Amino acid sequence: MLTKDELDWVDRHWKTSNYLAVASIYLKDNFFLERPLNSNDIKGVLLGHWGTCPGINFIYTHLNLLAKKTKANLLPIVGPGHGFPAILANTFIDGTLKKYYPEYKNDRQGISKLIKSFCWPGGFPSHANPATPGIIHEGGEIGYALATAYGAAFDNPNLIVPVIIGDGEAETGPTAAAWHSNKFLNPKTDGAVLPILHLNGYKISSPAILGTMNDVELNSLFRGYGYDVKFVHESHEEMHNALVWAIKKIKQVKSENSLKPEWPLIILKTRKGWTGPKEHNSNIIEGSWRSHQVPLRDVKENTESLKLLENWLLSYEPKTLFENGKLNKHIFKHLPKNRLTDNPNANGGKLRKELKLPNAKNYEVKFKNKGNLRISSAVVLSNYLKEIIKNNKNFIIVSPDELSSNRLDSVLEITGRKYVWSKGSKDDKLDRNGKVYEILSEHTLQGWLQGYLLTGRHGIFPCYEAFLPIIDSMVSQYLKFIKTSKETKFRKPISSLNYLLTSVAWRQDHNGFSHQNPGFIDVLASKSSEESLVRLYFPADANMLLTTAEHSLRSRDRINVIVSDKQKIRQWLTYSEAKEQAKKGISIWKFASDENPDVVLACCGDYQTEETLAAVKLLKEKVPEINLRIVNISELNVLGQENYQNSLSKSEFENLFTKDKDVIFTFHGYPDTVKQIIYDRDVSRRFDIYGYIESGTTTTPFDLLIRNHVSRYDIAIYALQKAARHNSRVAAKFGHAIKDFENRITEHRKYILKEGKDPEEIRNWTW
Amino acid sequence: MLTKDELDWVDRHWKTSNYLAVASIYLKDNFFLERPLNSNDIKGVLLGHWGTCPGINFIYTHLNLLAKKTKANLLPIVGPGHGFPAILANTFIDGTLKKYYPEYKNDRQGISKLIKSFCWPGGFPSHANPATPGIIHEGGEIGYALATAYGAAFDNPNLIVPVIIGDGEAETGPTAAAWHSNKFLNPKTDGAVLPILHLNGYKISSPAILGTMNDVELNSLFRGYGYDVKFVHESHEEMHNALVWAIKKIKQVKSENSLKPEWPLIILKTRKGWTGPKEHNSNIIEGSWRSHQVPLRDVKENTESLKLLENWLLSYEPKTLFENGKLNKHIFKHLPKNRLTDNPNANGGKLRKELKLPNAKNYEVKFKNKGNLRISSAVVLSNYLKEIIKNNKNFIIVSPDELSSNRLDSVLEITGRKYVWSKGSKDDKLDRNGKVYEILSEHTLQGWLQGYLLTGRHGIFPCYEAFLPIIDSMVSQYLKFIKTSKETKFRKPISSLNYLLTSVAWRQDHNGFSHQNPGFIDVLASKSSEESLVRLYFPADANMLLTTAEHSLRSRDRINVIVSDKQKIRQWLTYSEAKEQAKKGISIWKFASDENPDVVLACCGDYQTEETLAAVKLLKEKVPEINLRIVNISELNVLGQENYQNSLSKSEFENLFTKDKDVIFTFHGYPDTVKQIIYDRDVSRRFDIYGYIESGTTTTPFDLLIRNHVSRYDIAIYALQKAARHNSRVAAKFGHAIKDFENRITEHRKYILKEGKDPEEIRNWTW
Repeated sequence: MLTKDELDWVDRHWKTSNYLAVASIYLKDNFFLERPLNSNDIKGVLLGHWGTCPGINFIYTHLNLLAKKTKANLLPIVGPGHGFPAILANTFIDGTLKKYYPEYKNDRQGISKLIKSFCWPGGFPSHANPATPGIIHEGGEIGYALATAYGAAFDNPNLIVPVIIGDGEAETGPTAAAWHSNKFLNPKTDGAVLPILHLNGYKISSPAILGTMNDVELNSLFRGYGYDVKFVHESHEEMHNALVWAIKKIKQVKSENSLKPEWPLIILKTRKGWTGPKEHNSNIIEGSWRSHQVPLRDVKENTESLKLLENWLLSYEPKTLFENGKLNKHIFKHLPKNRLTDNPNANGGKLRKELKLPNAKNYEVKFKNKGNLRISSAVVLSNYLKEIIKNNKNFIIVSPDELSSNRLDSVLEITGRKYVWSKGSKDDKLDRNGKVYEILSEHTLQGWLQGYLLTGRHGIFPCYEAFLPIIDSMVSQYLKFIKTSKETKFRKPISSLNYLLTSVAWRQDHNGFSHQNPGFIDVLASKSSEESLVRLYFPADANMLLTTAEHSLRSRDRINVIVSDKQKIRQWLTYSEAKEQAKKGISIWKFASDENPDVVLACCGDYQTEETLAAVKLLKEKVPEINLRIVNISELNVLGQENYQNSLSKSEFENLFTKDKDVIFTFHGYPDTVKQIIYDRDVSRRFDIYGYIESGTTTTPFDLLIRNHVSRYDIAIYALQKAARHNSRVAAKFGHAIKDFENRITEHRKYILKEGKDPEEIRNWTW
Repeated sequence: MLTKDELDWVDRHWKTSNYLAVASIYLKDNFFLERPLNSNDIKGVLLGHWGTCPGINFIYTHLNLLAKKTKANLLPIVGPGHGFPAILANTFIDGTLKKYYPEYKNDRQGISKLIKSFCWPGGFPSHANPATPGIIHEGGEIGYALATAYGAAFDNPNLIVPVIIGDGEAETGPTAAAWHSNKFLNPKTDGAVLPILHLNGYKISSPAILGTMNDVELNSLFRGYGYDVKFVHESHEEMHNALVWAIKKIKQVKSENSLKPEWPLIILKTRKGWTGPKEHNSNIIEGSWRSHQVPLRDVKENTESLKLLENWLLSYEPKTLFENGKLNKHIFKHLPKNRLTDNPNANGGKLRKELKLPNAKNYEVKFKNKGNLRISSAVVLSNYLKEIIKNNKNFIIVSPDELSSNRLDSVLEITGRKYVWSKGSKDDKLDRNGKVYEILSEHTLQGWLQGYLLTGRHGIFPCYEAFLPIIDSMVSQYLKFIKTSKETKFRKPISSLNYLLTSVAWRQDHNGFSHQNPGFIDVLASKSSEESLVRLYFPADANMLLTTAEHSLRSRDRINVIVSDKQKIRQWLTYSEAKEQAKKGISIWKFASDENPDVVLACCGDYQTEETLAAVKLLKEKVPEINLRIVNISELNVLGQENYQNSLSKSEFENLFTKDKDVIFTFHGYPDTVKQIIYDRDVSRRFDIYGYIESGTTTTPFDLLIRNHVSRYDIAIYALQKAARHNSRVAAKFGHAIKDFENRITEHRKYILKEGKDPEEIRNWTW
């Protein structure tokens, strides 16, 4: 129950935030309506989204009072981040904005700036963004708020994350999947998530699906998902009571040890653009999609519209909200001491504790002769990850039901798969407190991990290479978030987002064509920038993977993409050699190279390295006169133009690749990825790039190489053709050798079709 | 109720398909178990997924009987496409496989081939694929079956699409969103979709979420979505009755005109790997995740395991299933005449009717002087689309609630937004029979459109450019589907999938950074191949857009990406000029070019064209001595290497770009996209590529160009620097002009920050 004083406060707080939101969209002067509104007070370009703002303000108002009364530790997340005028207003009202941007004082100048600079070049943009305190979710591309909220709550037992989901957002797949996150939330060790589904009935220009469902249907749907549902209509009393109920319910859930904890969910039904203009030009505005963006577009030209805007603004009674250009001090009365918009979890870098990393050298793979031992790099990494989990409570692995398939399951010796609604079979390795999160939704995993990292923790995302493109867009958005965060002074660096791309295209013996897609690398390569926010790693063996993982897990504010398969592969470098190469991300492999090479064989990717060295062996047998140089690239970015942070200088580049020799470059992914990176080096005349060219099916690993023209025989043929140009002794006999290699390809194709497996010699050669 | 005869048939049909599925995974000989199984009968590499197969077979068996008894027109779609041994077995049993591949006869040789060639190089791969008749959904990357099923059912009133959804698949966002498709299905004009949710409780290695929910929770969830739910357990009787109920229910729904039609949904609960081995090495197999792939991995080495396999195969009583190496003829008794696996809708190209396209010339934008008229190309296209909708019943527009925002809403004058659960406000332009499909789920839209196209119809997908990357992965999979279809003789060409990328990065005045992502172009560029399955179009004005749209809508078996903004833009070419340029996708714009150019200005993209011509004007004013050539690229692929279908020959390329002059290339998207395409031309020395470099925020359009260094002033500076090398008269004065342009940039930045809008001169120049 609200006291009269609380009700009065709630009403005024809401009106103040609504007033500021509306003013931000329209006004460049006369900010307090101290004189009649005129056309010159109106911004030249009207930007911002009104429709969702009154609902967001309503929720923030009540969350403030709730936090004040219950001392609950709340971190609100707003799905409809286009309702930024509302978020900004709240961040201003509670003084957080001023804390980080002193110019936004609570005075005439500060409020004027707040209103005018919204969506003004140099001011705050139109959507929630990391330059604003309190934000861990952008909300430009909607759908990801719910999963992010759960990620923030995991291993954060005292936190409650109220997350506002719009009814538009609720139509997206990522949101629809993320509702099931409740089954992963451990009442004892995790915080709580309080979804507030804001049904205002409309999207940009049509009704929202959930808006066309009645309360019985909605209740059935969300009870089915496992939530306890409370409906709220346009009433302060109802909203307050629902929130008090939710807090009680959360306490209750946390005090019990239920198999199926029934977390609360609030469905808030309001008109879209509630409190805005009712009608305009005989069109309904309030309660319709016409409220979505800027409802009265013609206020600058049309005096009648201007009058409507004036009445709208006056309806909030600005005279009672402001005193001499300041907020009426009454508004501070029920704000919680720990401001909603300044929850430390929203600036995770400040909370972040370094990961206690075991020395990766302890996991070194030892071997006698280079290239002869074949082991799974993934298994080695798995033991390293196991030790990390042992030593750290703030590290998680997220994976789309692929941990075991990706050979990382030795971590399950020390932890389990996090799941709360378990039926309890030991066999399934489920654990209410596990550190491995598996759900067959890459979107949900990405959202969870973002929420976990942004609140100051650590993690890694191993995935079938082919299925990370499912979250291309999420990652692109997250990269924008990191980019802006790095430009924002008050944001402290957070842990990098680490991907392990495994079960790669080249070893889809089982699954075939649909599981062959190295496109994720390509998407991130295009987003490489001078800040080098994205690193693309291709460790060729286990020791290289170890040093890459160690480095990546220690790094901050980046996206690390580590491409390394799970199948057994030849081992080439000692740990210290791997560490040495990692400094520059590239090196000449002297043990396989000659002085004064006729041709350079460059390889990037584990199978490409193995295949290139197989080609070297073939070449040395058939044409011993050939002089070769092997260059192994373990960090692709270094090939980029010189102004990248970590790219090679011109002289370094030429020391590696020579100044003029031809280079046969075999790459793990699409040749195009290398081409775009290397373009500005102006070496296209002498660099021939090979890789995956979408020629796939369910076949043997070697046949896949043949189909994409990157087998050892192909590489040997390319090398001979080039070397013959520079070396007359090679030129004298290369035709014969080429014919031989071509025959091997033909024979192999026949053999494959007959026997259905690679000949043993392919697997069992020695270096 | 099943008769005894039916029950017997059902049991035997199911056993036969199970036997064939198991045999396909394991056997390379002794296919009928006519002698004891020995190690040499076992394939060297065991591939395939057993776990879901018995469920799929169970469903197919009962669908066959249902179709036979009710004459229902069924097009089954299988979400868990990794259960391909089951699909293949059914396609063989009913004779469809033989129809398209005569070698798969019903005799000893045919059955042996069927079993042996599964997952064998040259044989069928491990997952459902377009080389198999009856398939319109690959199912390698799971999640898309449900939306595809609805797409197939739209405007297909006599079709029923039973769609099998696995409980793993059900965790994905795309599936979770697609359940709401029921609200778009019109009982009168559409077919029906019958989802069969197959709960076997486990994914690859852990329990499925839906498997941990009880019947009350499941019923609540799916009733919430709006379905009428029937549970089926491991019983032929129950399954048959449920299907009969579903058909009745569908008839009833179709006979009523309910506001909220309650379509049926069947939840089939079985053990995973049902009928497989119970245990192995003390591990539970049947009813656990261990059945997912190949349950007994060591049959070749371990005689005990081999015995288990033998018993497993014998449990189906092969002696009763086969007679002298042929299927027991009893099995044909209850197969429907119109085979499930040979529904004509699964080879849509055969059903496809050409679109009645109005002459695009009728929509030509006329103007007096080039470059001075500014109109929205989208509005022009909209009128063209309106006429298409008027003339064709088999054409849809899918859009994520952006039709109006993208200025295509004149089509709403003739149709409405398809929606069945409408509350009925005229204002919302909803229509139970509308041809515009809007849902805020790009995944669902893509699935719908795929289903619609694959069953022989037509459509277009306009979308904010920034939000198509949400479906990067779906499109990549669909492209694989097209690629394989084209290699499959019996598949007839279907309509191309046409995307209109609009509300582009350069005009996100309102939404800013999160809405700036030209990555979709880049993803598809990397997948370009010799077959030219992907075309990337950048019409610079309305007439060019018209001719591009006309061409794209007529094309088949491709993905057409048309990038064209919605805002007003200058008009350059007449319709016939546009048509002429479209032949090659590129041309010299003579009206803006000089003889013997000092430098070539190349532009690809509407804003880039406008900005380049603005630069020309500036240059001609300041340095009239400069000789320029303007090359406009409207089809990006043509720049690719010569062996692409539609790429320029070397001489064509040099005729356009000269042999040796520098080229300033401004591109709509990431510069990397052009770099990768043009790499093999070996022109990096003289081609400087500019574009979007992730420098964005909410700001004015011109400021965004400045931030990414591609404004008219930047282009003019680049051009002068290059031209000065070749033209001494330019060299004499270029420093002064450059300083002037640099000042303009600095001043502009100041102006922007002060006024918050672009100076009028930027908008109002004349050519």
